[in-house]
Amino acid sequence: MLEYLESLRLVDHHCHGVLGEDVGRTAFEEALTEAETAGPPGVSMFDTQVGFALRRWCPPVLGLDAHAEPGEYLARRAELGAAEVNRRFLSAAGLDALCVDTGYTPEAILGPPALGRLAGAEAHEIVRLEPVAERAAADGVEAGRFAGEVRSRLHAAFAAGAAGAKSIAAYRAGLELSGARPAEGEVAAAAGRLMLAAERTGGPPRVCDEVLHRFLVWCAVDAGLPVQFHVGYGDADADLRRGDPLLLIELLRAMDPVPAMLLHNYPFHRHAGYLAQVLPNVYVDAGLATHNLGHRSPALIAELLELAPFGKVLYSSDAFGLAELYHLGALLFRRGLAGFLAGGVEDGAWTARDAERVAGLVASGNARRVYGLE
Amino acid sequence: MLEYLESLRLVDHHCHGVLGEDVGRTAFEEALTEAETAGPPGVSMFDTQVGFALRRWCPPVLGLDAHAEPGEYLARRAELGAAEVNRRFLSAAGLDALCVDTGYTPEAILGPPALGRLAGAEAHEIVRLEPVAERAAADGVEAGRFAGEVRSRLHAAFAAGAAGAKSIAAYRAGLELSGARPAEGEVAAAAGRLMLAAERTGGPPRVCDEVLHRFLVWCAVDAGLPVQFHVGYGDADADLRRGDPLLLIELLRAMDPVPAMLLHNYPFHRHAGYLAQVLPNVYVDAGLATHNLGHRSPALIAELLELAPFGKVLYSSDAFGLAELYHLGALLFRRGLAGFLAGGVEDGAWTARDAERVAGLVASGNARRVYGLE
Amino acid sequence: MLEYLESLRLVDHHCHGVLGEDVGRTAFEEALTEAETAGPPGVSMFDTQVGFALRRWCPPVLGLDAHAEPGEYLARRAELGAAEVNRRFLSAAGLDALCVDTGYTPEAILGPPALGRLAGAEAHEIVRLEPVAERAAADGVEAGRFAGEVRSRLHAAFAAGAAGAKSIAAYRAGLELSGARPAEGEVAAAAGRLMLAAERTGGPPRVCDEVLHRFLVWCAVDAGLPVQFHVGYGDADADLRRGDPLLLIELLRAMDPVPAMLLHNYPFHRHAGYLAQVLPNVYVDAGLATHNLGHRSPALIAELLELAPFGKVLYSSDAFGLAELYHLGALLFRRGLAGFLAGGVEDGAWTARDAERVAGLVASGNARRVYGLE
Repeated sequence: MLEYLESLRLVDHHCHGVLGEDVGRTAFEEALTEAETAGPPGVSMFDTQVGFALRRWCPPVLGLDAHAEPGEYLARRAELGAAEVNRRFLSAAGLDALCVDTGYTPEAILGPPALGRLAGAEAHEIVRLEPVAERAAADGVEAGRFAGEVRSRLHAAFAAGAAGAKSIAAYRAGLELSGARPAEGEVAAAAGRLMLAAERTGGPPRVCDEVLHRFLVWCAVDAGLPVQFHVGYGDADADLRRGDPLLLIELLRAMDPVPAMLLHNYPFHRHAGYLAQVLPNVYVDAGLATHNLGHRSPALIAELLELAPFGKVLYSSDAFGLAELYHLGALLFRRGLAGFLAGGVEDGAWTARDAERVAGLVASGNARRVYGLE
Repeated sequence: MLEYLESLRLVDHHCHGVLGEDVGRTAFEEALTEAETAGPPGVSMFDTQVGFALRRWCPPVLGLDAHAEPGEYLARRAELGAAEVNRRFLSAAGLDALCVDTGYTPEAILGPPALGRLAGAEAHEIVRLEPVAERAAADGVEAGRFAGEVRSRLHAAFAAGAAGAKSIAAYRAGLELSGARPAEGEVAAAAGRLMLAAERTGGPPRVCDEVLHRFLVWCAVDAGLPVQFHVGYGDADADLRRGDPLLLIELLRAMDPVPAMLLHNYPFHRHAGYLAQVLPNVYVDAGLATHNLGHRSPALIAELLELAPFGKVLYSSDAFGLAELYHLGALLFRRGLAGFLAGGVEDGAWTARDAERVAGLVASGNARRVYGLE
Repeated sequence: MLEYLESLRLVDHHCHGVLGEDVGRTAFEEALTEAETAGPPGVSMFDTQVGFALRRWCPPVLGLDAHAEPGEYLARRAELGAAEVNRRFLSAAGLDALCVDTGYTPEAILGPPALGRLAGAEAHEIVRLEPVAERAAADGVEAGRFAGEVRSRLHAAFAAGAAGAKSIAAYRAGLELSGARPAEGEVAAAAGRLMLAAERTGGPPRVCDEVLHRFLVWCAVDAGLPVQFHVGYGDADADLRRGDPLLLIELLRAMDPVPAMLLHNYPFHRHAGYLAQVLPNVYVDAGLATHNLGHRSPALIAELLELAPFGKVLYSSDAFGLAELYHLGALLFRRGLAGFLAGGVEDGAWTARDAERVAGLVASGNARRVYGLE
């Protein structure tokens, strides 16, 4: 079953750009997990499930023995240089297509076309919703014209070939969004508050308002594009309390039949699996958590597949920055899913033929169908 | 250990009636899981854990090979007809007694006596509380006399030999019910609101009010009957946010020593296990989720048994409609519990004798003791 | 790996005192779990994971065969007497140091020095915060001087060699504490309310106020002492709804870089692991739950170690009263961690050398570093 999964190229339906430059040890450790820092004195982010998984699987791609020590590994990485390292890991990931969230792009991050070339895969763009509204506010669009202007900017972005949209409400106002389409007056009032707050703080506008998140989701829904939602696990800014996908049920219901793609989901992945079963338009993945859980990722994959129909589960890496993460995500996903499916075949719970069919759905078939990729 | 569990007849302390008529493929897929529909184009509810479990275990009961394709299976099912299919699966379940929630009964659903005959088991009734209040409101009982009238109707229903009562608060106002017994005036006010709302919408009265749910539970408590609570997993109407059993702690405490039976519980089964340990009158099961998790149900059973005392855990199928679900629930429960107990014996964690004793408690002993079945 | 872990002496960074007197069967069953009572008729607390684990591992320490029946076990225990039983189990635990919460001490409970002698280990004190405030209120300190008086009493207690402080906010107002340091006026107002409430009820003052819990935590933070927080699993008083560690995120953030030690955590241990990864000053354990889950404790340990960096995980028993619990906690922890680490070595996920290094960190290294024990 593992061989079969290794023969399948994956669609990574949610990732970010890769760093185009070399990084030192501290920056590497900071980029490895969702921690804000490389840890207090005495703690190394290499001493984590993802750190151990990296040392197990990545050194051989760079010509070292498995389980290389961090110092040796980083020295070899520096020696090869970012371009070669990126090429090796992106190619090792075995991808057919990537959907790239371009909403957060520090300077040294490569965009979808470069990422696609490195991976030998088609690269599609996912439009992050909130920054479009924030740029409109920064451009001084007046409150009364805000809804129309944002709608037209988004439709232009979608028309440029986007595969989907993404909401980061979980990072801001939280996932408890009502299902109702906000009235124009409500959006105008919220836009006014947004600009007033920016003026007061002197910083750039920052969308953190139930009405605006919801308005933005409806813009994507009206365009018929699948909407990705950050759910659960993320960096410390995420405030996990507000990231439970159960909070989103009203909006998920209201946006049917437009697909809602619940990303990451850990530690609420069983909640997400429930939603994928009971609501026809809900799809789920275990991105980010898969590589962060390392040797424990098979448990996560098995739990996600408890209630979620096999036609509703997708692969994503949620990789950002470090090329290793695209490879680790894909490798651990293939191994975890293969173990899950092979275990069932061994126990006589399902046939090898059904197992291979499910592998095909989750590896790429579901993503191709939902995003309309050919 | 599996042989031992197969030799034990079960008490299914919470199920519903079985469909007395044949069903087509769409209706079958709709009835298989808790989804509202058979899924969007490209998704089949047969491609789920419960679908794979059904294809593994049910075709042999109908004379087909395990893992039959859905089309072949449904053709054979139609050929045999509902009466024969029902007889075979209910009999295969190996039940001694059933407690049947009669609160939701579309026309073609068979009642407790017919179900008992099919299963070769005693059938007891569980009185669902909310419909009794809704019928009283529909009958135009005035608000000031509502409490007394509902109380007397319920006591009549209980006196007709009910084994217990059931609250579906989790589907309506949610499980955050206070522990206080509501005053007559509060009930009258809530009844007035109930009837006003029905008048306004023109539909039948629908109890969805913290006071009324609570009042109904207290009617059962006063009668000394075990009260079943829907908890966690259910169809999309359930709003899982309000279905965490921790929300119910005040009422659970207040109703002691009357037994509170927490049903289903997934994905909050660890919360339920905690309550079963710390509160003397709380009991738990993993109905509905057991067959829906299919090959993963052993993990659920093991998690439920982390904190819950073995004298507080019961078997239920929560089967409704499809005869296969009574069989799958019982079969997966026996296999999951057997695996759990045998694993402990193998590791030397407990003796075979203790394992058999626990099997007997969970299979039927706890249910017989709590419901007072002989 | 198990041999290696058995060779390591543990630091138990959170426990309570042991009972110095003999106990009868009812009191023993009541002390075995977090239940309020020994259970309703027909239910025995020996029929639990912790009861089975006790019968597996404890009888041999008292010279009986494993799996002794409860009656036989308790007779042997009574025959040996509390002093000998305590000596045997505390010694079998293999501890190097204990941090003892002295905040709840019924008369027959032995204090840190006696506990340390029994265990052959250094014993450090953990100052429980709320009782210090309650004693000040009981002493009639007036509201306006309350903050200063409590601060000075706490600093005296800390100066007497305490290793840390502990908050039981989860048992009272809940973990949703703001991050802000309360103003003196707020504390005075809260102290006034505390004393008024005590006067009204005629009972002793009982801190159950978001402002006071927070004020007390800040007193410890200002002293630079690690602060332990009760989280999740505990007795029925705990109201688990308010014990999710995600509720505490603002205060955890605000108190950085002072270490916050999240205790127990079950069933929110994955939430706790997340916090340990993303916040630099957060540390976690699985005390109390480890022995209560018995044969299932390896699953808990593996789940805790999904996101938590290995440099952020500590051992604790949370044992209270029964000497068996110090031994069971240590034994199940060693076996669970050994199984986790050995499984990874066997699968090639990490090296034996890394596994031993992680074992050393979790067994004692992390605790020594965070508490500054030499």
